[in-house]
Amino acid sequence: MAVYTEVSDETLDAFLTHYAVGGALSCKGIAEGVENSNFLLVTSNGPYILTLYEKRVDPGDLPFFLGLMEHLRSKGLACPQPVHGRDGKVLRCLSGRPAAIFTFLEGMWPRRVLGRHCGQVGAALAAMHLAGGDFTMTRPNSLSVAGWRDLFGRCRARADEVQPGLEGLIEAELIELEGLWPTGLPLGVIHADLFPDNVFFRGEALSGLIDFYFACTDFLAYDLAICLNAWCFEPDGSLNATKARALFAGYQQVRPLQAAELAAMPLLARGAATRFLLTRLYDWLNRPEGALVTPKDPREYLRKLRFHQSVRGLESYCLDGPE
Amino acid sequence: MAVYTEVSDETLDAFLTHYAVGGALSCKGIAEGVENSNFLLVTSNGPYILTLYEKRVDPGDLPFFLGLMEHLRSKGLACPQPVHGRDGKVLRCLSGRPAAIFTFLEGMWPRRVLGRHCGQVGAALAAMHLAGGDFTMTRPNSLSVAGWRDLFGRCRARADEVQPGLEGLIEAELIELEGLWPTGLPLGVIHADLFPDNVFFRGEALSGLIDFYFACTDFLAYDLAICLNAWCFEPDGSLNATKARALFAGYQQVRPLQAAELAAMPLLARGAATRFLLTRLYDWLNRPEGALVTPKDPREYLRKLRFHQSVRGLESYCLDGPE
Repeated sequence: MAVYTEVSDETLDAFLTHYAVGGALSCKGIAEGVENSNFLLVTSNGPYILTLYEKRVDPGDLPFFLGLMEHLRSKGLACPQPVHGRDGKVLRCLSGRPAAIFTFLEGMWPRRVLGRHCGQVGAALAAMHLAGGDFTMTRPNSLSVAGWRDLFGRCRARADEVQPGLEGLIEAELIELEGLWPTGLPLGVIHADLFPDNVFFRGEALSGLIDFYFACTDFLAYDLAICLNAWCFEPDGSLNATKARALFAGYQQVRPLQAAELAAMPLLARGAATRFLLTRLYDWLNRPEGALVTPKDPREYLRKLRFHQSVRGLESYCLDGPE
Repeated sequence: MAVYTEVSDETLDAFLTHYAVGGALSCKGIAEGVENSNFLLVTSNGPYILTLYEKRVDPGDLPFFLGLMEHLRSKGLACPQPVHGRDGKVLRCLSGRPAAIFTFLEGMWPRRVLGRHCGQVGAALAAMHLAGGDFTMTRPNSLSVAGWRDLFGRCRARADEVQPGLEGLIEAELIELEGLWPTGLPLGVIHADLFPDNVFFRGEALSGLIDFYFACTDFLAYDLAICLNAWCFEPDGSLNATKARALFAGYQQVRPLQAAELAAMPLLARGAATRFLLTRLYDWLNRPEGALVTPKDPREYLRKLRFHQSVRGLESYCLDGPE
């Protein structure tokens, strides 16, 4: 939950004159999004989301993120849409920050993940991968294998504070991942952070995806490996086979995986677990005094990493191999 | 900002069947209210506020708070209204907490307080005091003079961590306040926490008051003394005479103060400063690890207390005495 920047009524009123969305009836900071300040703006036209981009987001990346959301919507994928100002622009400055207004996406993210959610998430992820196929902008993934060692370097000295032996475990894992990381898998635009709080449902049906601020160009199958980690584990670190099967079946109904993608899945899943272990470890060790966001426990991803390290093949995920 | 309890879509849907508000399109935790969990609930009927009462609120007090809001509204004061369920009830259980749905009050609280805000706040406070005149329920003020010593006892040992000499200063102040605290002033229902974030404006005009969860029965003039502290000081601890005059003039246009209330004002203002100094000191020294709420600096109220200790009479507030 996060509101880092305050917006006064006078500055908001001035800002809204640039848009045809009506006058502000209300603007409340909401407990969604960790990186940015988000407000639920109610105008005479209805609800909108107002986002102020904070320091952790590179303003140079914003055209990629906003352009992607518009591209995906034009292909039929449900996601918030940046509202164009009267001058056609989607980004301008508010309270000293880059800011944009978005259409309101109905739905709630599932607090308790069920198998039926996982199947729909898989299908939506595959639909996003297909819809992104002709998106022409690219953005390197700074949080993939090439970026992990740098991140590790910034938190390794204190890693054992979280769990004895953690530094050595990650060091060994990075050496393996760097040596074994696949090449040549299908590339495209990936969401890269499709956790349950970024997927909305209305009743039984998935209503859309949000929070594209980690989106980048990487292996499509790596995105699915992130979802496997995020959606298919029990709190004790064990895999829920029903959810894993539902996730993969949902994905493959829309975009069948290639044999090389399936074969690489255990390694991609290890990589995805390592990526979230590292960022959570960094955030855990670098909590600012008076932080508005409670950092998530890195050990959740340590348990997942250990599971992936122990697998012998796709059958450990209760998945079928290539036919 | 606070969301302490999660609400799942399934439990919310079941909860909403008890009300005629339509189905949930969205429910987002909002960064308002420190004591409770608040959600902006959007249904097919429009926006509502959903509040879950957390442990710091005594469930036995809820009928007083909700009854007061309904009473004040019936007298024409703008404030959120608890929505009655199909069975007539306004309170029921959600995610293990007492919970209520409220009508949505338009407006935003002023991030930058101006003189014009203070005049309207004074008038609205007086209107609330008059409207509460025939409210039949009562609730003792546990945070008035009789409650301060107990609160002090729970944080005095570490008071000097915040500022050297603070323990002695508060001890001396409490002795004075206990000896000099007035009796016989007009009593009634007071808001007791009418800070800027509890007063909404739309454009130039005050649109309503929120957050009645400290409301209680006490001297009406003490409520005005709380507003004097909350609305009329500059960040350096100096009084803004224009704001103080506007606050009092706005109040007296609606409810003229009695001579005894005016005469007691410097002491009531010291008491109000002491009350917020003590609660902020307690919260500062008892921050839970991973707190979602950043505690406010108690020294702001130490500066205000020192100002009030230095005054010679109403002229120090640039106010006229009784005529």
